[in-house]
Amino acid sequence: MDIEIINIGDELLIGQVVNTNASFMSEELNKVGLNVNRVTTIADDANEIELSVLNALEHADCILITGGLGPTKDDITKYTLAKIFESEMEEDENVLANIKRIFDHRGYTLTPTNRLQALVPKKCRVIENLVGTAPGMCFEKEGKLIISMPGVPFEMKAMMQRHVIPILLSHYKPSAIFHKTIITQGVGESFLSDMIEEFELALPKYIKLAYLPAANLLRLRLSARGEDEKAIKQELDNQVEKLMPLIKDYFIGFDEGDLSVLVSKLLLEKNKTLSTVESCTGGNIAHTITLNAGSSEYYKGTIVSYANQVKTELLGVKEESIQNQGAVSKEVAEQMALQGVKKLNTDYCVSTTGIAGPSGGSDEKPVGTVWIAVANAKGECLSKQFNFYSSRENFINRTTNQAFAMLLSWIKEGK
Amino acid sequence: MDIEIINIGDELLIGQVVNTNASFMSEELNKVGLNVNRVTTIADDANEIELSVLNALEHADCILITGGLGPTKDDITKYTLAKIFESEMEEDENVLANIKRIFDHRGYTLTPTNRLQALVPKKCRVIENLVGTAPGMCFEKEGKLIISMPGVPFEMKAMMQRHVIPILLSHYKPSAIFHKTIITQGVGESFLSDMIEEFELALPKYIKLAYLPAANLLRLRLSARGEDEKAIKQELDNQVEKLMPLIKDYFIGFDEGDLSVLVSKLLLEKNKTLSTVESCTGGNIAHTITLNAGSSEYYKGTIVSYANQVKTELLGVKEESIQNQGAVSKEVAEQMALQGVKKLNTDYCVSTTGIAGPSGGSDEKPVGTVWIAVANAKGECLSKQFNFYSSRENFINRTTNQAFAMLLSWIKEGK
Repeated sequence: MDIEIINIGDELLIGQVVNTNASFMSEELNKVGLNVNRVTTIADDANEIELSVLNALEHADCILITGGLGPTKDDITKYTLAKIFESEMEEDENVLANIKRIFDHRGYTLTPTNRLQALVPKKCRVIENLVGTAPGMCFEKEGKLIISMPGVPFEMKAMMQRHVIPILLSHYKPSAIFHKTIITQGVGESFLSDMIEEFELALPKYIKLAYLPAANLLRLRLSARGEDEKAIKQELDNQVEKLMPLIKDYFIGFDEGDLSVLVSKLLLEKNKTLSTVESCTGGNIAHTITLNAGSSEYYKGTIVSYANQVKTELLGVKEESIQNQGAVSKEVAEQMALQGVKKLNTDYCVSTTGIAGPSGGSDEKPVGTVWIAVANAKGECLSKQFNFYSSRENFINRTTNQAFAMLLSWIKEGK
Repeated sequence: MDIEIINIGDELLIGQVVNTNASFMSEELNKVGLNVNRVTTIADDANEIELSVLNALEHADCILITGGLGPTKDDITKYTLAKIFESEMEEDENVLANIKRIFDHRGYTLTPTNRLQALVPKKCRVIENLVGTAPGMCFEKEGKLIISMPGVPFEMKAMMQRHVIPILLSHYKPSAIFHKTIITQGVGESFLSDMIEEFELALPKYIKLAYLPAANLLRLRLSARGEDEKAIKQELDNQVEKLMPLIKDYFIGFDEGDLSVLVSKLLLEKNKTLSTVESCTGGNIAHTITLNAGSSEYYKGTIVSYANQVKTELLGVKEESIQNQGAVSKEVAEQMALQGVKKLNTDYCVSTTGIAGPSGGSDEKPVGTVWIAVANAKGECLSKQFNFYSSRENFINRTTNQAFAMLLSWIKEGK
């Protein structure tokens, strides 16, 4: 069974907002074995909405719509759906009560515009929105469900997890799906593809392999789908076992999330703490770690030493090292990590110093040059040089992932 | 004239990759007055690709395609396009030379799989890819351009800016467009909409108003489009002048980017430096600032004091303040900012301390509670309490934007 997602919003088509709703929804649906076949993004335009919904009804078994449910003039989704499904509008008591509750909580007065959000098409089943004022709506036509949700990400997320996924599971009863994702580093997509060609060709039809490159990483994702849960799960494990020896030189770990999740698991398991000292990554390693709930258990803090003065005065890097070797050097990277362990009082510290660009490079140290060091409380240290020449953002992301990978393998080695 | 973007990639439909290509492309096209009408995301599936391209040819004047140009088995876009446009494949000399150049540069040996990337449909105009191995392809049918680009973001970005935008401008000659974006804070979408209803209704037809909510911000974007550049630009300015008195209580600044850009402009203009001391934002403020090229001119560094020990020992927050008031308190936030100014030796420092959740809250200080303080080298300090209860990520983003806004207004006040 195929799902089409329709994301409505002018802001998505002028590029001011990245469509993270589509990826969140796809991921959640995929996890439970529901297949997204197509995502369509359109403007807050009645004709476009009608055209897209009617078109999707021809090809898909289910339509999930987000956006256009706000209180302003450009929010026309529910009126358009009412037209498509030939329904009048009515004020819903429960929705109005929820809006009043939220406004009371925030200390706001209800305006006539806000009250419009309680208007819903008579023919839909209303889906409650506990974290916002726009209700969800579920229509049914010829066995197909058409569900409209708010476009505000956290409202949509709560509604998906609490209501929409359960509704879909009970209505469509999908076959089981299992995934196994393997993270590799240090190998390009085409090389890996050549290396595992025979393996890939020999995969059973119900197991699919996807290559998922990310900044300085390559994920391999095996997905098995079928009716016999036990059998497909077993076969997935068998295939992973076959694959592992082929890719062992590049293997980092198994995971769906980012590398910081693996780092956090390892640190918790070993009961160790971490700090970071960042120059060129400017706090991104810290930010990535602290996005994980519970990170305060193993993560203590960071010094972002963007200025050399911060490196010397606050952190205690030797001034002569910066003068002689430059701020982007093995010596400075290692001192940063070693001092980080001391100053932030942790078992491990990882440091970065590099030239993110676009300017600041030289012949000897071109833009993209970066030194990464890991250190431990025993005073041991390992550092490596890389060149991640790219956009500034990509440089930061690649350096961040490389830092996590170095830390992972170093800790695993027993350092 | 309407453009349809088709993003191809299994990884987009399982949610493992966020479709940032669509937003980047839309933004670039929008800037030059080219209108994206629809974005369609589909799998690496020949039938889906053919169906989507043929469908788009019916509705759109131009189709921009990304993805499926890699060297692996699941990359089938170019073969499918060759079929649609009834073209044979041939090896392109220039493309092959480019692939060899890139492989030499990386010190890799060319494999037969890599060489496949030099195969292109005879009927297309090849678009060079200087930063990757997959070439772009431009087809023309009944005056409509159909352009295929790699899905790797930085390769697509370089190709868009260097080649695709110029090709589109010379082919379609769009009418001029101008935007003005106004950032507001402290007011909800529906309230603002009520406040400026008359203004909105009186706008000339060629000027559109969009509400663009972001974490703890609301942007208003006015876009004017027409043939007479001077006249529409003038009218856009007139309308902004009319709008300003209506929203002055919530006005933060004019900008397309994020608030860190406004902060950086202000600091450079005043020749002042900034540091941050972050607890609950975990380095996100630093990360947001350092994404801006040239930020080392005004930004010196950050202490992420996740652990209380870092707050006291490294930063010098009084232990008794943490014990008596708690780490999330006015007193601690202010000490963090004041100590940051000293320890990081800057003109300004902004600090955050709060409970991001999902756990860690109490009756007195529920999840979402956050204190933000700004301080200067004169020893002055301002702090405010907020509750940004939401997802962890949204909490961090809202706190970050609030910190920037407090900093902006404080510096503008002459502090």
